[in-house]
Amino acid sequence: MGSISDWKTMKEAADILDEFQIKYTKKVISAHRMPKEMFAFSQNALSAGIKVIIAGAGGAAHLPGMLAANTILPVIGVPIQSHALNGLDSLLSIVQMPAGIPVATTAIGISGAKNAALLALQIIALSDPQIAKKLEAFRKKQHDTSVRSSEQLD
Amino acid sequence: MGSISDWKTMKEAADILDEFQIKYTKKVISAHRMPKEMFAFSQNALSAGIKVIIAGAGGAAHLPGMLAANTILPVIGVPIQSHALNGLDSLLSIVQMPAGIPVATTAIGISGAKNAALLALQIIALSDPQIAKKLEAFRKKQHDTSVRSSEQLD
Amino acid sequence: MGSISDWKTMKEAADILDEFQIKYTKKVISAHRMPKEMFAFSQNALSAGIKVIIAGAGGAAHLPGMLAANTILPVIGVPIQSHALNGLDSLLSIVQMPAGIPVATTAIGISGAKNAALLALQIIALSDPQIAKKLEAFRKKQHDTSVRSSEQLD
Amino acid sequence: MGSISDWKTMKEAADILDEFQIKYTKKVISAHRMPKEMFAFSQNALSAGIKVIIAGAGGAAHLPGMLAANTILPVIGVPIQSHALNGLDSLLSIVQMPAGIPVATTAIGISGAKNAALLALQIIALSDPQIAKKLEAFRKKQHDTSVRSSEQLD
Amino acid sequence: MGSISDWKTMKEAADILDEFQIKYTKKVISAHRMPKEMFAFSQNALSAGIKVIIAGAGGAAHLPGMLAANTILPVIGVPIQSHALNGLDSLLSIVQMPAGIPVATTAIGISGAKNAALLALQIIALSDPQIAKKLEAFRKKQHDTSVRSSEQLD
Amino acid sequence: MGSISDWKTMKEAADILDEFQIKYTKKVISAHRMPKEMFAFSQNALSAGIKVIIAGAGGAAHLPGMLAANTILPVIGVPIQSHALNGLDSLLSIVQMPAGIPVATTAIGISGAKNAALLALQIIALSDPQIAKKLEAFRKKQHDTSVRSSEQLD
Amino acid sequence: MGSISDWKTMKEAADILDEFQIKYTKKVISAHRMPKEMFAFSQNALSAGIKVIIAGAGGAAHLPGMLAANTILPVIGVPIQSHALNGLDSLLSIVQMPAGIPVATTAIGISGAKNAALLALQIIALSDPQIAKKLEAFRKKQHDTSVRSSEQLD
Amino acid sequence: MGSISDWKTMKEAADILDEFQIKYTKKVISAHRMPKEMFAFSQNALSAGIKVIIAGAGGAAHLPGMLAANTILPVIGVPIQSHALNGLDSLLSIVQMPAGIPVATTAIGISGAKNAALLALQIIALSDPQIAKKLEAFRKKQHDTSVRSSEQLD
Repeated sequence: MGSISDWKTMKEAADILDEFQIKYTKKVISAHRMPKEMFAFSQNALSAGIKVIIAGAGGAAHLPGMLAANTILPVIGVPIQSHALNGLDSLLSIVQMPAGIPVATTAIGISGAKNAALLALQIIALSDPQIAKKLEAFRKKQHDTSVRSSEQLD
Repeated sequence: MGSISDWKTMKEAADILDEFQIKYTKKVISAHRMPKEMFAFSQNALSAGIKVIIAGAGGAAHLPGMLAANTILPVIGVPIQSHALNGLDSLLSIVQMPAGIPVATTAIGISGAKNAALLALQIIALSDPQIAKKLEAFRKKQHDTSVRSSEQLD
Repeated sequence: MGSISDWKTMKEAADILDEFQIKYTKKVISAHRMPKEMFAFSQNALSAGIKVIIAGAGGAAHLPGMLAANTILPVIGVPIQSHALNGLDSLLSIVQMPAGIPVATTAIGISGAKNAALLALQIIALSDPQIAKKLEAFRKKQHDTSVRSSEQLD
Repeated sequence: MGSISDWKTMKEAADILDEFQIKYTKKVISAHRMPKEMFAFSQNALSAGIKVIIAGAGGAAHLPGMLAANTILPVIGVPIQSHALNGLDSLLSIVQMPAGIPVATTAIGISGAKNAALLALQIIALSDPQIAKKLEAFRKKQHDTSVRSSEQLD
Repeated sequence: MGSISDWKTMKEAADILDEFQIKYTKKVISAHRMPKEMFAFSQNALSAGIKVIIAGAGGAAHLPGMLAANTILPVIGVPIQSHALNGLDSLLSIVQMPAGIPVATTAIGISGAKNAALLALQIIALSDPQIAKKLEAFRKKQHDTSVRSSEQLD
Repeated sequence: MGSISDWKTMKEAADILDEFQIKYTKKVISAHRMPKEMFAFSQNALSAGIKVIIAGAGGAAHLPGMLAANTILPVIGVPIQSHALNGLDSLLSIVQMPAGIPVATTAIGISGAKNAALLALQIIALSDPQIAKKLEAFRKKQHDTSVRSSEQLD
Repeated sequence: MGSISDWKTMKEAADILDEFQIKYTKKVISAHRMPKEMFAFSQNALSAGIKVIIAGAGGAAHLPGMLAANTILPVIGVPIQSHALNGLDSLLSIVQMPAGIPVATTAIGISGAKNAALLALQIIALSDPQIAKKLEAFRKKQHDTSVRSSEQLD
Repeated sequence: MGSISDWKTMKEAADILDEFQIKYTKKVISAHRMPKEMFAFSQNALSAGIKVIIAGAGGAAHLPGMLAANTILPVIGVPIQSHALNGLDSLLSIVQMPAGIPVATTAIGISGAKNAALLALQIIALSDPQIAKKLEAFRKKQHDTSVRSSEQLD
């Protein structure tokens, strides 16, 4: 993520990865304040055995796109809800990438952080039947929760 | 895609997949006009051996999210540039998914279609070194094109 | 509605229906988490004797449009006020339907929920003079309340 | 509609009503330039045997809401695509009605005009099995058109 | 104003009119809930000796435009800050009037209410030198307040 | 107006003033490129016998507000439709004035220019019964034009 | 700044200038309430030995652009976060300047105020190696803070 | 600039620099397609004797911010008018920088490109009286052009 203040959003992604017992590293790498580390990290991610990168950033959110520029690993961008413009700036800064360098963008804020983790898991599940099975179970559980919430309405 | 009129955008994705000699199926499946086919397709996609779904749609763009609701395959959503609101409606309808069902969203219009294909290839490359190599070559080529365009400025 | 968290908005619709002593069913049917139930419900609604469907949803709000895709009953969509974008995403996801599948959209949030109930009643009143009479009385009452509020200004 | 310039949009609604052989009256009634006619029309619409009112208007689009204020008939509002703001002003002026007076809003522009006609037909179909049957056939036809457009892709 | 809830904004206009000892009437006249009163008021305003009408309204704010449609008196519209869209809907519903029926629009919320009163006074001052003099004094006072606030910075 | 390129919009205001045989002066006074002339003009406008100032400007449209800061004459602001943001920037720059200095804002573009002229005439009509009579006639004519356009529909 | 209420934002700029021990003057100069002082200040700024002007303003934020119109000194504009529109109006009023009179615009709110100070320092550093050195140290410190925040995550 | 397609906008900046006979280098350096060159350029810019960097970019416009992250030279960002969102995405991606790394942002499109050049010249003029004199002459000329355009109106 681009700033420690993003952690309260990105923690939601970490919690899901924990729930799936997936190994991951969490870092603050500011594109603007730590450009060298950002470069080194993204250029070495593939050889370091990383499969998917999840990057949360807010405002003029350059982190996901700049990581994507330096790797052919899938990069998932989470627009952090910003103070003045509620994350519309974060969203447009992440999703409107020029042709050639894709960033897989999710929703603004906490829903986006959770979905970034799930999307990463869905990608990994393509070659990991264990994860695929857990994802099916996760889906079933959230389906059942919705069904029960409906029953509780009456 | 949701409508045959989306083809002039989504063709850009197809062209890149052709360039990478990846096998794919192209379809019009309107979430609103063909809901049964949409359901059947997304529920069977995994068992049919599909790896990644790319869905382009415009306006109240429900196709990517509804496909994602029925499969744990990664779904990439491309917001088609709409007539009145220039694709802002398409973008928000695709990207603002609730927690639980992710859609990997790309940019509005042609850049987004191209990047959807590239993102799909980056996902496939995780387990296909051939594609990974071609992606590195593709990146190198687009880098060189940029460099040359700079030289031609003078 | 798409989520139990929408109930605090949609309850306003239910209250008006209660006031008019109209029979209705309230349900959580998430388009994304319960797609099968959503399909079954909308395909069977007409034969189950339902006259009008009111669907509240937020963010990438696909529920109203997907219900509408499966029935020729009038579907009224209520954009729930979302966290980051204040319901602008909900509104555009519901109202910008492609030609062929209409959704009768009301205002964002509580006003929209109330008006969805009133619109449903106005539709039912076309063939139910009792409801028509009650609606005229309801309008008179709210007129009188406005008039009185003006008198209390002084 | 509010102005003769709206006719090129609203004609799409008329064409669908013609196709369904529904009797209707088309009028320019500007809320701002013909307020008395607007008032008289909406106050008398119910007793004149009208079932549903479709009102298209652009910019500060007051026509649908003002008609709705004077009748308990369902009023469907079509936001005309305006010059400067592409119909966002029309949409918000129509959809953001206060609690008490609903307007059933459709999409901006031509899709909205078509859907206004279809929504009116769906409302009428509640008590007219002939129209219901024609609507089912209409849906089937548009489904088949989508399917065929998909086949022609290859 | 369109609703008693607008009073906390419009009171700011009343306070300025009080300060200038201008006679005025304050009313709730909902365009949607009290259309007949709204009509009667605006048609009779000129002959009742009213000089300027100030109308505050929120959301699909039709009051200023509908009053303007029925009188050649200057109508000043104040966009009330709405719940979901912060008054952007109110602003566009008031300011985007079609050619032929002007509404003099001020800022969203309290600043707009104050300026509506001042604008009305500036209009009246054209033929009332007393008010003109008071306005010059008012301007001088607010200038001096700004100057003093600057001095207090140090 | 702020730039000669605004003339194609503001000419619409001039045409209406001509039609009403009102004396007026037209000028390009750029707030940014001619600040001294802008200051001199607005400070002297009252003593020069001017009654109302109409100011059209686009983008970061500072002209209406700066004129208003220097005079107690009513200032009407017309947001010119700008290139990139279609006049939304012009509108917000003109209408969102702080408390203390009002600008009477009209619609973006040509409708706004026409209405600025009509609003000025409505203000002048308060003390000029001739203009009031002409305005009533103008209103009647535009009413009749609308009525005739409705008749021509059939 | 345009109003004393902007001080809680602009104080952040002052704090950074204090930290760099740069001499500066802080003032409230409202473009609208103190136009003469605004003019005098900007016309004399160059000869008074000022190097860079930082101007914060909100809503219809005319101060930065009007200062820039009267001087060839670099003017940095800070959009203050406004009440209704969260500073989008301030941003567009400041940044969308016509060709000929530039304003160097920073982000909405506190980040923008801080960056305005830093940008001023970067400009001054071009001819002041002392400041350049301090800026390098400042950058290093904020880099190290980011790095440490990352380490504290684990 | 980030892409050769930005040249038709950025050429306007170059033309002004030519008019002032300022030495400059023009380059395409895509933040996304040429990240290494972008890094090298920005890290070496100061020691290469560059005074000011002007960076134009569109969509998810990361170039100005990433250059600014690597240098303490003033960086001026020009939001290129993008296809779908008219440059609103470019503007927010450039201007909404986090505290610590400023980018001096100008208007969207051609006005912004011209003003970027003028802003650079105003910065350089702080230590170059020749440029200061030319800027005063340039201002005078554009003032006179505005005055003449006003005279030609009659």
